[in-house]
Amino acid sequence: MKIKLRDDIREFQDGLTLAEIASAVSEGLARAALCAKVDGVLRDMSTVIDKDCEVEFLTFADEDGKKVYRHSAAHIMAQAVKRIYPTAKIAIGPAIENGFYYDFDFQTPLPKDALEGIEAEMKKIIKENIKIVREEVTKKQAISLMKELNEKYKIELLNDIEDSQTITLYRQGDFIDLCAGPHVPSTGYIKAFKLTALTGAYWRGDEKNKMLTRIYGAAFDKKSDMLAYLAAVEEAKKRDHNKLGRELGIFMTDEKIGQGLPLLMPKGAKLFQILNRFVEDEEEKRGYVLTKTPLMAKSALYKVSGHWEHYKDGMFVIGDEDKGEEVLALRPMTCPFQYTIYNNGLKSYRDLPIRFAETSTLFRNESSGEMHGLIRVRQFTISEGHIICAPEQLEQEFKDCLQLVRYMLKSIGLEEDVYYRFSKWDPQNTEKYINDPAAWEYAEGEMKKILDHIGLAYTEAVGEAAFYGPKLDIQIKNVHGKEDTLITLQIDMFLAEKFDMSYINEKGEKARPYIIHRTSIGCYERTMALLIEKYAGAFPTWLAPVQIKVLSLTDRTAEDAILFTQKLRNLGFRAESDTRGEKIGYKIREAQLEKVPYMVIIGDKEKANNTISVRSRQKGDMGVMTKDAFILTVRDEVDNKVIN
Amino acid sequence: MKIKLRDDIREFQDGLTLAEIASAVSEGLARAALCAKVDGVLRDMSTVIDKDCEVEFLTFADEDGKKVYRHSAAHIMAQAVKRIYPTAKIAIGPAIENGFYYDFDFQTPLPKDALEGIEAEMKKIIKENIKIVREEVTKKQAISLMKELNEKYKIELLNDIEDSQTITLYRQGDFIDLCAGPHVPSTGYIKAFKLTALTGAYWRGDEKNKMLTRIYGAAFDKKSDMLAYLAAVEEAKKRDHNKLGRELGIFMTDEKIGQGLPLLMPKGAKLFQILNRFVEDEEEKRGYVLTKTPLMAKSALYKVSGHWEHYKDGMFVIGDEDKGEEVLALRPMTCPFQYTIYNNGLKSYRDLPIRFAETSTLFRNESSGEMHGLIRVRQFTISEGHIICAPEQLEQEFKDCLQLVRYMLKSIGLEEDVYYRFSKWDPQNTEKYINDPAAWEYAEGEMKKILDHIGLAYTEAVGEAAFYGPKLDIQIKNVHGKEDTLITLQIDMFLAEKFDMSYINEKGEKARPYIIHRTSIGCYERTMALLIEKYAGAFPTWLAPVQIKVLSLTDRTAEDAILFTQKLRNLGFRAESDTRGEKIGYKIREAQLEKVPYMVIIGDKEKANNTISVRSRQKGDMGVMTKDAFILTVRDEVDNKVIN
Repeated sequence: MKIKLRDDIREFQDGLTLAEIASAVSEGLARAALCAKVDGVLRDMSTVIDKDCEVEFLTFADEDGKKVYRHSAAHIMAQAVKRIYPTAKIAIGPAIENGFYYDFDFQTPLPKDALEGIEAEMKKIIKENIKIVREEVTKKQAISLMKELNEKYKIELLNDIEDSQTITLYRQGDFIDLCAGPHVPSTGYIKAFKLTALTGAYWRGDEKNKMLTRIYGAAFDKKSDMLAYLAAVEEAKKRDHNKLGRELGIFMTDEKIGQGLPLLMPKGAKLFQILNRFVEDEEEKRGYVLTKTPLMAKSALYKVSGHWEHYKDGMFVIGDEDKGEEVLALRPMTCPFQYTIYNNGLKSYRDLPIRFAETSTLFRNESSGEMHGLIRVRQFTISEGHIICAPEQLEQEFKDCLQLVRYMLKSIGLEEDVYYRFSKWDPQNTEKYINDPAAWEYAEGEMKKILDHIGLAYTEAVGEAAFYGPKLDIQIKNVHGKEDTLITLQIDMFLAEKFDMSYINEKGEKARPYIIHRTSIGCYERTMALLIEKYAGAFPTWLAPVQIKVLSLTDRTAEDAILFTQKLRNLGFRAESDTRGEKIGYKIREAQLEKVPYMVIIGDKEKANNTISVRSRQKGDMGVMTKDAFILTVRDEVDNKVIN
Repeated sequence: MKIKLRDDIREFQDGLTLAEIASAVSEGLARAALCAKVDGVLRDMSTVIDKDCEVEFLTFADEDGKKVYRHSAAHIMAQAVKRIYPTAKIAIGPAIENGFYYDFDFQTPLPKDALEGIEAEMKKIIKENIKIVREEVTKKQAISLMKELNEKYKIELLNDIEDSQTITLYRQGDFIDLCAGPHVPSTGYIKAFKLTALTGAYWRGDEKNKMLTRIYGAAFDKKSDMLAYLAAVEEAKKRDHNKLGRELGIFMTDEKIGQGLPLLMPKGAKLFQILNRFVEDEEEKRGYVLTKTPLMAKSALYKVSGHWEHYKDGMFVIGDEDKGEEVLALRPMTCPFQYTIYNNGLKSYRDLPIRFAETSTLFRNESSGEMHGLIRVRQFTISEGHIICAPEQLEQEFKDCLQLVRYMLKSIGLEEDVYYRFSKWDPQNTEKYINDPAAWEYAEGEMKKILDHIGLAYTEAVGEAAFYGPKLDIQIKNVHGKEDTLITLQIDMFLAEKFDMSYINEKGEKARPYIIHRTSIGCYERTMALLIEKYAGAFPTWLAPVQIKVLSLTDRTAEDAILFTQKLRNLGFRAESDTRGEKIGYKIREAQLEKVPYMVIIGDKEKANNTISVRSRQKGDMGVMTKDAFILTVRDEVDNKVIN
């Protein structure tokens, strides 16, 4: 048979395994190959080949090779768990970025050092170098085996599979798992791993199901790579806004106030104000007009908008209709409110486009498992706006929105960290989406045209659209690699209809406007979280809640420090003085911990010469300079929004 | 007998009526006197005097004289109503400022011109000059009479009176009313009246009771005074923010969104932003630090603060405890949130005073009858702050708060329109107030000391304190004369205890701080309402949502208008251009209707000379000037916050 390899076509005798073929090519390849792609399909190395085909051997260097490697590590972990806790039930255990996890239903509480024990057992299994064997059975056989093993989650998974389908099992010594494979040839292939975390996870991700125990691990083919990865994770943890943001006094939470309801402390509230004024002023320059609309409304409004039908579970509702009470709901979006303002008075084509902007607080009834620091909360404030325009204005307005977003991202330094996702509806999900395929096709077509016209690089995602239209989502990952939407631009083709919005066009006829839903900097809380992580709390000067700290060297210069601080404040800088009777070294260290961009030190000599000593967080000691020179330097940095 | 008159003591024979005594004094007095005070007690002119006493005859010039006059007018209206609608039941009918009202329970719908009909009948009754006669009866007799007359509301009132008490009735021809009196001698005394309004009003002001029909009237002793008053009312109506604010596009409401939930339209949202930035910046200058805390919290928080016990009816509650749901409530005040931030980390005397400020949105579940425009709403935003200080700092901090308030009021032009009220607790109302008389006595004593120390002129009001402490309320009346609290400064002596707030004092001991609750400009919505009414929408330049309108004389100068507008905007002015192909007169009239402070007109001549023509809303035509001269003029007006 003829085998097409990566850069060669070679002749082999029929009926060789992939492992034997690899050996025939080279000993190095045989050692490194974890599995192979045969005519594009992933296969175990034990697979017998008996006809012409294309074979691509995969090592840890390949994405699919990594996945198979890490998936096998997950099986090894499950085997170790079953050896130590025979009554534990196994659920699912996939490979993930940098490692793997497996979900277990433990019947007994885990001891504190459970992970160490499981790790030790995994090392034993790896040392035993047990062969990993693929077996094909019928669904009936598989169910009967899993019943024997008392693995109820596997039985549930099997019940979802069609009766006629062949089922594959993977066996490694005393452990057997229901699995599509492939896997590495034997347990000894795993060179470096580490169990990293233990959390709760609902069976099948559904909070109505039982909470299982998820154990996470990292797995690499070299110990050095794993240590580097673990060090990076540790570094990321230090940047975690949920830790650092609290340490820096940016926000806090409180049990009595509730989950997902962070309190912005003075530094956080100041950062919010800085960002908020920047956004409102920039939007005003670009022709937006402000609104300020109520944070709640009667259910009647949401019944018109469709939120009541498509989004009620996500809303906080006040009052009980059955008791004859007035029913109000906290708003999850601003759209219906700005549309109500649009509808106040007749509009002509001369009025369009109307660009409404609002610093808008929204509420979403997230389930408790989903909340996280400032990133996922139950109340948040967003730079929300709606552009109501004539059809022929849509493309230009959309482009302008994107340009504004990019200017915002550049100003705060996140421009390089984001990527673009074209989020489309899911025709299967009739509960989530307004079911009008023709309208969706049209809107998604229009949006694609615009995106391609702009020449934007984007991915596509089905089932990520809003219930009323497609979105361009601007995505970002936090320090832990978790992806979230930072900013979104949407085209709405249903709500103008539902709210009967109209304008008189140039021919004097009543016409239906187009609507863009958009944000320019996203949800302030989430953006702040990403900024904390990006800068590890050391914000660029223009964003820093405290920009300059003026320290007196001794009591003799305390008044000078206070006066210079006052001068800086009068000039619009955010300055504080520290005139405590502490040693200067102590005061400098404290200012460093607060990550203040500039420290100004005034001692007797500076006082005598009417100068100051300056330390920059970034450039270190900048020496003695005149007050005016310092002010010019900082003014320039702030005005130009210089990013560290 | 000896009668002490206003400026004389005279001897009269015993058993004269007050009317006879007045006649003996002078014919003029006899004509003008409506009633009299005998040893300080109000009496009818028909009262027989038979012993030495002091008599003060009252005319319309006296406050009590006005009340009696207007109260008699109310009786005349009730008589007219009963003549026209014999089945109508009468409730109560007091004198009020400028007039009177009477509440009726009509058994049939009123025709559109009902008020005209009643007025005509009243005129007839006045012309008939029916004697108004006082009668004394027992409670039993009174009840039996009212049963006969089928006046169920009067019977309800009688049932609340002690059995032994003598009841007075006033009879005027075919009409009889239960009334303490006194009244003018006869219906002919009423010289000028006008029925002004018809509204609904709950029996005894309780919304659980039946809604009655209230008819308002104005009454004066001279027709010219009444016409002047009615003209002033008409003028006030034009200034009514609830009308003018809508006409000027400042706010709107919507049936589907709900009562008491106004939407700020672009001009209103801009005015809000202007005021808000002014407040936040001024507070920052005065040492306040910002917070931004959640708009809702679990019931657990309000149970600590006491809101759950004392204020639950006023809150919007989400979730049902009985169903095992999490119970959250929208916040009615910011206190517990800022206290939670205070409690984050140990505080020392060196940290005090801490001055927290927040642009804080609050929610109060007002009953529907109480809501009005922007003045009384269910959601509002307030410049709310709390100063946490050592006891010895309290007086200075309180003074500083008052100084800030006065600066704010002066800046927006309301300083002369407010008056000060010291609001105290009501020891009888144990449901509303925390029941700790000693603490109340102490706090009210401290507050009085501070107020007297400052030398502030104030009135006192029992039962107007917050549930947790006394207040200095800064009161204002709207165009209709209705009084509301604009700004409040409060001393809290309970919540620091409830939240276990503390600091380490100079001796190293744990001590309890004092707290001032305060606002500096009050609730933005209410302040905006009062500004609209104060300025009839023609805001001072520094507050005007649009400061300058640039009009092109012809299409030839359209571009120049746009460019100059852009220049003004870049300089931080709020400018708009009007380059439509309309006649200049039309464009000027429109800008005038919008009450824009400055209009700039650019024609060919101005273009050629690089000048502009300026019209000031206040000063009229200011002629041709250079752009720079104009910019300097407006800049100066804005920077100095000049009030029209």
